[in-house]
Amino acid sequence: MASATATASPIPGKEEFKLHMYWNDISQGTEKTTVPVISPSAEYPNFGETRVMDVPVYDKMTKDKIIGRAQGVSLQADLKQKAFLLSFNIEFETPDLKGSTLQVMGRWTPEMSSKIEWSIVGGTGNYTLAKGIVYGRMRSTGDDSITWIELDILGYCAPLQKPN
Amino acid sequence: MASATATASPIPGKEEFKLHMYWNDISQGTEKTTVPVISPSAEYPNFGETRVMDVPVYDKMTKDKIIGRAQGVSLQADLKQKAFLLSFNIEFETPDLKGSTLQVMGRWTPEMSSKIEWSIVGGTGNYTLAKGIVYGRMRSTGDDSITWIELDILGYCAPLQKPN
Amino acid sequence: MASATATASPIPGKEEFKLHMYWNDISQGTEKTTVPVISPSAEYPNFGETRVMDVPVYDKMTKDKIIGRAQGVSLQADLKQKAFLLSFNIEFETPDLKGSTLQVMGRWTPEMSSKIEWSIVGGTGNYTLAKGIVYGRMRSTGDDSITWIELDILGYCAPLQKPN
Repeated sequence: MASATATASPIPGKEEFKLHMYWNDISQGTEKTTVPVISPSAEYPNFGETRVMDVPVYDKMTKDKIIGRAQGVSLQADLKQKAFLLSFNIEFETPDLKGSTLQVMGRWTPEMSSKIEWSIVGGTGNYTLAKGIVYGRMRSTGDDSITWIELDILGYCAPLQKPN
Repeated sequence: MASATATASPIPGKEEFKLHMYWNDISQGTEKTTVPVISPSAEYPNFGETRVMDVPVYDKMTKDKIIGRAQGVSLQADLKQKAFLLSFNIEFETPDLKGSTLQVMGRWTPEMSSKIEWSIVGGTGNYTLAKGIVYGRMRSTGDDSITWIELDILGYCAPLQKPN
Repeated sequence: MASATATASPIPGKEEFKLHMYWNDISQGTEKTTVPVISPSAEYPNFGETRVMDVPVYDKMTKDKIIGRAQGVSLQADLKQKAFLLSFNIEFETPDLKGSTLQVMGRWTPEMSSKIEWSIVGGTGNYTLAKGIVYGRMRSTGDDSITWIELDILGYCAPLQKPN
């Protein structure tokens, strides 16, 4: 369910919202959603490799409806293991949320079993002053070039009166 | 007006501040404020193009006084249209705000008519614990290499006692 | 002291936490923690130079215990002086904090005398919904390739009930 459900919130002055969606990243072929823009450092293999992404998020893994897109960057920033710094906007495309965005930062270790928690560091439109967490778990597809992540977003935002 | 005006706030524990300023980005010539550092992906035209920026913000379009500088990065992260992920600091240079900064993230579609809303995700100095929104609207100059954006900032911050 | 000490907080709905640690960045040799991934712009010397980092943070300058790692990126984004946009995760490695992260953004002018204040813009695990400030001061080592920064972190976070 993609629309914000404003409810009583444990954070004073803020409204709670919840979102559920599926992240569909494709790293190979003509439907690619992620491409490399910086090669790894010559000195450390893989360190520094950077990819730009425009990853659609859907209501279901059957892709019935697109909720929006996660647009930003992923940077390999760990010397010992695969672990990315992610920094991206989610821009929403459903009629009720069009023009709203969430800003997300976090660390991702892309192993199947690893726990995903990213930070919502801001938001605009319906999600003004948003803070929260993106919880994720990877869903197997049997195809290494296709990454599905089920996302549960829990956040807090506040309506603002835009100055004129 | 560049100084923070602390007033009663709808966000418990926080003070409201408002700022009004003009962003002056120049993409051509010897006064350039933005330069490319990553070329677009070979696979998708323009996807991934990245520019670093050091954009002055003024009190007026007549540049009477510099308020500060927006320093950071803009990344083309949309496969279908011109839409950037922005990530930058505003560092203030007026006597009352010197040393203070705001951290900003957001999505920008640089068409003249598009609504601009970026997130303030943090702040330091006078703007400790800041959250808020940067509202912007583009102002025509007749010169494609010069971008003026009128910015209205609405934010909430909190004084902190620095540990010693 | 690396563990979060939850205490009464001036920010409603949030718990205060404090951390004290030492940042140890090495820019030369085989123990390097920072490497360049984007060269400066051809047009402006040094503008745009970007480095990826995986910097350990310790409990003491004698490196008795590793607290975690600061993993991310530093970008030279000032036309007139050395001043970086930093964007990184701190991932914690101590038993009590394993799996928790902080997201940090800020501006750094790496002169010995300069005041360091970076923004905590988010957190996960123990630091869910974190906001705060990283205060730092550089500690001389007599070796230009080794940067020690003493960090005092003051933040506010809130426990969240993960949706199931």
